[in-house]
Amino acid sequence: VKLYDMNRAPNPRRVRVFLAEKGIDIPMVQIDIPSGENLAPAFTAINPRGLLPTLVLEDGTVLDETMAICRYIEAVYPDPNLFGQTPLEIAQVESWQRRCELEGMYSVGMAFRNASPFYAHRSTQGTAGQDTDQIPELVTRGKLLAERFFISLNERLGQSAYVALDRFTVADITAMITVDFARWIKVYPTPDQTDLAAWHARVSARASAKA
Amino acid sequence: VKLYDMNRAPNPRRVRVFLAEKGIDIPMVQIDIPSGENLAPAFTAINPRGLLPTLVLEDGTVLDETMAICRYIEAVYPDPNLFGQTPLEIAQVESWQRRCELEGMYSVGMAFRNASPFYAHRSTQGTAGQDTDQIPELVTRGKLLAERFFISLNERLGQSAYVALDRFTVADITAMITVDFARWIKVYPTPDQTDLAAWHARVSARASAKA
Repeated sequence: VKLYDMNRAPNPRRVRVFLAEKGIDIPMVQIDIPSGENLAPAFTAINPRGLLPTLVLEDGTVLDETMAICRYIEAVYPDPNLFGQTPLEIAQVESWQRRCELEGMYSVGMAFRNASPFYAHRSTQGTAGQDTDQIPELVTRGKLLAERFFISLNERLGQSAYVALDRFTVADITAMITVDFARWIKVYPTPDQTDLAAWHARVSARASAKA
Repeated sequence: VKLYDMNRAPNPRRVRVFLAEKGIDIPMVQIDIPSGENLAPAFTAINPRGLLPTLVLEDGTVLDETMAICRYIEAVYPDPNLFGQTPLEIAQVESWQRRCELEGMYSVGMAFRNASPFYAHRSTQGTAGQDTDQIPELVTRGKLLAERFFISLNERLGQSAYVALDRFTVADITAMITVDFARWIKVYPTPDQTDLAAWHARVSARASAKA
């Protein structure tokens, strides 16, 4: 088993934190996205999609969707449970994980990829995003949607100690990394979002957050 | 249990097909998205996010992410299995479901929501998308990404009878509905995408496809 990783990038960090919560250590290889190493032949020979993180299993199977990798790890190492156990827990974790990812992390990514000079002609990630010029309106749009996501996340954290359940789950991993990633586009929790700030401090204090 | 539905919309159809594959029949209420009924107070009182499909459970719990609803149903009614059983199957279904959704359906939706006059000032869905004007470049971008997705889906279906596994799963539901939804933006499988066409005919012939 080998994980192709980039240590500053948010999606690979989701897998590293997930592994740390499970107490699992696996070999990692660094691939640099800004310089385009993920799109160069040496890496696309391993993963034609050019995406990180990429997990290669013993039998050569390549998994490259962050959540598919996390679900694989959860199925092989069920403890501690990070995806919910009862039908309702499973639904709530999936629901909040998706909100954090699709309303939060994707909005931040939209603003970032459409602004950073590194991604001028590949504003969509991976080989599927070749020759996708940046769209400047998406910088403003991504920031707006990220700010709106912070409002609903703060509201949620006023009602619940953790994002999806009353305990730490994969939804907290996605949400924590979204808050950290949002600094790259200069979006921060506002001073009145105190429940969001308190939760963020709490999850960031876990040993796994350093992964 | 009650499902808030819109019969022409792709995401609600994903849940209806999923239910049909499980052989489950539940009461449904129609809500009209183009006219904005999903954002009006009568519906946002039920689901503040204004999203469809919305499943309301007996105890009043509201689930509104398509995949969270499907995972809830899978957990309560495990047969036939639609999300995979072994760790590797689970990962492959998640991986392909996400590709079909994020590269396929979202690209089609991007082109559609940024072109249709109904969505002139709500190009992002639900209440989180209030006052999001359309971005015309996203029509071209969405079509391009949908066409690229069809290329990779056709390639996959040259190697596998179904999208994720050698049997029908939730990934086939998302992919089939993406192909049907793409007609709304005039993107169709090209004549040389024969594996995609053959698979689409096969899944569309299932009784569940009419749901």
